[in-house]
Amino acid sequence: VDVAGGDGVVEEIASDVTSTWGPDVIGGFGGFAAGLAVPEGYRRPVLMMTTDGVGTKCEVARLAERYDGIGRDLVAMLIDDLTAVGARPLAVTDYLVVGRLDPVRERTIIRSVAAACREVGCALLGGETAQHPGVVEPERFDLGGAAMGIVEAGREVTGEAVVPGDVLVGLASPNLRSNGFSLIRSVVLGVLSLDETFPGTTHTTGEVLLRPSVLYAPAVLAVLGEHRIHGMAHVTGGGIAGNLARVMPEGCRARVDLDSWQPPGVFATIADVGGIGRDEMLATFNMGVGFVLVVDRAEAEDVVASLGASGHHAWRMGRVEAGATGVDLVPAG
Amino acid sequence: VDVAGGDGVVEEIASDVTSTWGPDVIGGFGGFAAGLAVPEGYRRPVLMMTTDGVGTKCEVARLAERYDGIGRDLVAMLIDDLTAVGARPLAVTDYLVVGRLDPVRERTIIRSVAAACREVGCALLGGETAQHPGVVEPERFDLGGAAMGIVEAGREVTGEAVVPGDVLVGLASPNLRSNGFSLIRSVVLGVLSLDETFPGTTHTTGEVLLRPSVLYAPAVLAVLGEHRIHGMAHVTGGGIAGNLARVMPEGCRARVDLDSWQPPGVFATIADVGGIGRDEMLATFNMGVGFVLVVDRAEAEDVVASLGASGHHAWRMGRVEAGATGVDLVPAG
Repeated sequence: VDVAGGDGVVEEIASDVTSTWGPDVIGGFGGFAAGLAVPEGYRRPVLMMTTDGVGTKCEVARLAERYDGIGRDLVAMLIDDLTAVGARPLAVTDYLVVGRLDPVRERTIIRSVAAACREVGCALLGGETAQHPGVVEPERFDLGGAAMGIVEAGREVTGEAVVPGDVLVGLASPNLRSNGFSLIRSVVLGVLSLDETFPGTTHTTGEVLLRPSVLYAPAVLAVLGEHRIHGMAHVTGGGIAGNLARVMPEGCRARVDLDSWQPPGVFATIADVGGIGRDEMLATFNMGVGFVLVVDRAEAEDVVASLGASGHHAWRMGRVEAGATGVDLVPAG
Repeated sequence: VDVAGGDGVVEEIASDVTSTWGPDVIGGFGGFAAGLAVPEGYRRPVLMMTTDGVGTKCEVARLAERYDGIGRDLVAMLIDDLTAVGARPLAVTDYLVVGRLDPVRERTIIRSVAAACREVGCALLGGETAQHPGVVEPERFDLGGAAMGIVEAGREVTGEAVVPGDVLVGLASPNLRSNGFSLIRSVVLGVLSLDETFPGTTHTTGEVLLRPSVLYAPAVLAVLGEHRIHGMAHVTGGGIAGNLARVMPEGCRARVDLDSWQPPGVFATIADVGGIGRDEMLATFNMGVGFVLVVDRAEAEDVVASLGASGHHAWRMGRVEAGATGVDLVPAG
């Protein structure tokens, strides 16, 4: 069932997929695999891979019947993970598992994947749409994927170069990206319905919760080539502290100044409606910060300016101090 | 829920994963991504990606509570697709979605992925174990993944070089690999239970159906470097004809001699028990042929010998004739 059913959908979306293919892509759509020439200009290229999914946001998308942003969320999860280690994303594959095929929905999802790939200059090199009745419930689906990127050996950004005195530069996320949706489902959607107006906005709850992720890769890769970036964190599950902690080396403690920005209203409303405490909010959601760069102090101002010039809101959100390895979120107020 | 739950499992399996890492792997386990140096010896390397899953075989594994081969099936689906275009598999990622985490099961599955990766010299560069209650039913799971490979530009094997006169060389599959399990579930498992003896064997039905896939990549890659291989087909969904058809160029018709081999007994039993006709069997199962090479006539004998020396059963299973593009399965008897 899987392949026969999937192939029909795949044929429909061929033009969306091939629209992401630049001149370096080799191989025909529908073949066993597709390829991409290794880009020029690397002396010792290192290939990176990552895999992820958009998780329970799929289920909220299903309930709201809005599928036109979820593919962008997948691409953001994948390529901003690669970006966080300094790799340039080259290619993405998507893996869509459905209970029962819904060709219009599947095409909308994959079109959204393809549009995000085009935006960041990444080839959608393959995909699988599999129908698994009895494993996935009929109307439901899961969207995952994988991505490949490239970085010059020795130019990987691991956090090893982080030193006390470095500055934390935040990149704004105006929305939830793909994290926290299990909590949303369990404590928010019991109170707010997806088609009612989200408090403090003129949009429905479904629209607000499903707003698609910002793609940080192009702006971040541009500053990487120009500035001394010592570490980066893509803020996904675990929030700011959970992800920033991964790039703090021995003896370095990140001090995040929670006064340095105002989280978008969506987070206060979620906390309020769901009765979610501040610590759980910070450990679950991005709270308005989707990506953090740990930057050499002397270059922080230029990095903020450069990211701003790329159309992002960026700001100094704290610094690295000498101390026990970890992260402090310094209370607002 | 996804990431917090998944991380616990991921920690447990860290040693399995890192056991697949050769000296060329860069990056720490648990980081945002891991990398691999581009191998030496390519002048114009082309990177390939593919994604796939093991489909309904997961559900049969669940019913039989046997998880120690399903990861190998995933690796076979992925890397033998790359092999079929002439690419050397470099790295795999796995994507496991579960209704409710079962750490022992998850570890068994991922250990099986890792063991297969080690066997073919492929790095397991990442993985995601996500818990999606409400999307996937509590005890159920889906296993998918992606793989990356490399090939010298111009050495891709696309089938374009296939000409009339070429010989079809089959590689034996003693079992089902990962295809046909939806049909198995609907028509065989109603008649045979997984823990009863499979007719004609001393093993249970669960054992026979879940036997893990042969990995063709090492043997096929060895002959690729030595012989003129014009096209290759990994026999997955769609069977021998469906997959071989993909590599037949204009004016080439593959003539598969069904008398040239005896399908393993498992297929006759499935047909018999399930009341499945010959055409449906051929369109659904590999019927004992997991991989087909389309070989220059002058080299067919050497290719058969070389594959045999690698421990596979290989044989001439037909030839390419001039004719309408397609595949004929020439009836046995």
